[in-house]
Amino acid sequence: MSTQKPLLVAVVGVGLVGSEFISQLLSIPSPSPLKLISLTSSTRTLTLDPNSSSSSAPQLKNEWKSLLSSSSLPADLQSLTTRLTTLVSQDKERVILVDNTSSDSVAALYPTWLAQGINVVTPNKKAYSGDVQLWKDILEASSSQGGGRYLNEATVGAGLPVISTLKELLGTGDKIIKIEGVFSGTMSYIFNEFSTGREGGPAFSAVVGVAREKGYTEPHPADDLNGFDVARKLTILSRIISSFPTSSPSTLPPLQSFKSVKTASLIPPELEGIPTGDEFLARLPAHDAQFAKLREEASKEGKVLRFVGVVDVKGGEVRAGLEKYPTTHPFATSLGGSDNIIMFHTERYSPRPLIIQGAGAGAAVTAMGVLGDVLKLV
Amino acid sequence: MSTQKPLLVAVVGVGLVGSEFISQLLSIPSPSPLKLISLTSSTRTLTLDPNSSSSSAPQLKNEWKSLLSSSSLPADLQSLTTRLTTLVSQDKERVILVDNTSSDSVAALYPTWLAQGINVVTPNKKAYSGDVQLWKDILEASSSQGGGRYLNEATVGAGLPVISTLKELLGTGDKIIKIEGVFSGTMSYIFNEFSTGREGGPAFSAVVGVAREKGYTEPHPADDLNGFDVARKLTILSRIISSFPTSSPSTLPPLQSFKSVKTASLIPPELEGIPTGDEFLARLPAHDAQFAKLREEASKEGKVLRFVGVVDVKGGEVRAGLEKYPTTHPFATSLGGSDNIIMFHTERYSPRPLIIQGAGAGAAVTAMGVLGDVLKLV
Repeated sequence: MSTQKPLLVAVVGVGLVGSEFISQLLSIPSPSPLKLISLTSSTRTLTLDPNSSSSSAPQLKNEWKSLLSSSSLPADLQSLTTRLTTLVSQDKERVILVDNTSSDSVAALYPTWLAQGINVVTPNKKAYSGDVQLWKDILEASSSQGGGRYLNEATVGAGLPVISTLKELLGTGDKIIKIEGVFSGTMSYIFNEFSTGREGGPAFSAVVGVAREKGYTEPHPADDLNGFDVARKLTILSRIISSFPTSSPSTLPPLQSFKSVKTASLIPPELEGIPTGDEFLARLPAHDAQFAKLREEASKEGKVLRFVGVVDVKGGEVRAGLEKYPTTHPFATSLGGSDNIIMFHTERYSPRPLIIQGAGAGAAVTAMGVLGDVLKLV
Repeated sequence: MSTQKPLLVAVVGVGLVGSEFISQLLSIPSPSPLKLISLTSSTRTLTLDPNSSSSSAPQLKNEWKSLLSSSSLPADLQSLTTRLTTLVSQDKERVILVDNTSSDSVAALYPTWLAQGINVVTPNKKAYSGDVQLWKDILEASSSQGGGRYLNEATVGAGLPVISTLKELLGTGDKIIKIEGVFSGTMSYIFNEFSTGREGGPAFSAVVGVAREKGYTEPHPADDLNGFDVARKLTILSRIISSFPTSSPSTLPPLQSFKSVKTASLIPPELEGIPTGDEFLARLPAHDAQFAKLREEASKEGKVLRFVGVVDVKGGEVRAGLEKYPTTHPFATSLGGSDNIIMFHTERYSPRPLIIQGAGAGAAVTAMGVLGDVLKLV
């Protein structure tokens, strides 16, 4: 391989995933194909000179946090955009913007960046599962003359190769029949503990309480139990399928946003809109009986409950909700912890699906999914 | 994305996998980023003009077999090499040689092609699991100035994303602890049928006989039962790990060839060297008792037998052979048909591994793995 100029990487968002991403990027053995040129937190920006060799990767790895917190430059996405655009258009550099936030306002800038030839890599689900117009703008900007590329592997299954596998199946002409999986690490943990196929078991509210203590849920558990996280991931997969050039028109419904996914929320109607997680948890035990009843019905049929997401291409439906699976099914036997599992039923992988399984959340594996995308652009 | 000149693809080997690959390649919707420029069978060559638009993909898809069989050009890898070298060096074209044979002599040419800047994609395990000198020559040729790239996803697990996942784990700085899997579709089928964890079951020779009738084994079943196919796949994975730039030296043994893998053959010593598959199968029942004994021992422990391959990075060992797994283990519960399953135990995917599972053999999924690699080079 010929040695190329390094790709310039600008990072927005330096929280848990962002910090881990920076650490992984700066741990790539020299000579790295990547060069960090800026870091933007919610309040500040640190600009690094791409041509300076003064700050080596190991040194920067130790110092970026203090350098960023002592920087006098405010966080300003407008000037970041101007700087990156100049690097691409005047200096003919290859630039990647890595959005490690979960912000809607950062996501709204992807079309601008892509149109300028800036590549965009992110674990942020907002742009790809939000309003369909933003999705269309992204597709258009990226496919325009000189447009940048976007990759978002870490939006589904964190570091697991879910989106790349889907694209390879589609790109080589396979036909997707159905994608079915446990897409939420939180829901995975909750139902692996709650529903084992054996009779009885812990109360639903107790399991949710433990999951929250362990940090597996959002501060407000309703933000997991509403199923929106799963609906967003299904929207992302569904749109990839629909946007792929094939001979036959997509049978999937056009999703206006993740809210168009048929999602069966687990929030009891009486507990909708409760403002705090603490109050929600305090009132959840009053609804334990109905979850116990569902579990009992399932175990009588030799089944377990799992909160799954389904992109049913053949049936033309995208849905998220509680479903029952035999205790011999991989969703029952094979899952543990907060594992994700994704099954691709396709023309070629039929009758037995292609399966991908493993941790689907956590900073290290999410950052890995992001860095993997960045390395694909090298 | 800017529109680029198509990549030129030369195919050597038009058997089951080769034909399916050509069919998949020619089914890519127009405008395809790939252009077929030559087909070479064991006897003939068909040369296609990259600048001619006379033969469209759909037309070629119907006609390539008859065009090739009526071609008067002999199969001649020397002149193919000359032609491709000229396309790369003089015409500045990007060229991919796809080796769909299982030939040692084609594999021996990879260093020559790579050194000339020709990219090489293949499901052929020979070069990557054979003599270590060929492997070193490939690495050197590819990393030389202007060298071509090589990709070989389909050598392990066919279309399953095994090698790409391994490279992504390594490339993003994860540490591999152990890779463990059922790597042979044939062995998978045989032991899924033979050892279910329940007491008793069919005779070993009967299962092997059925597998052969179904076309799951080589014509001579000893070519599967010797474990060499698994040893080759482990060699490929092991060399990828060892060759990756990291801070710590590899703890894996340098493998002189796949024969250096500790492989526990399933061929009874008395049946070594039997010339025909028919005679082998006729004499196998005399050894059924010893396989039944192993199965009985396993089932008494609540376990099943599986023929697995292990790259134990932490333990510094690469081995293939029969091992016992609890009936609750994914190798026991989750496998069916001739599925492969591969578990990556890593620093990040720990204690629960990253798992990839699905059909690991067959023309459609193997060709898909090859075409996926070709598309990665676009």
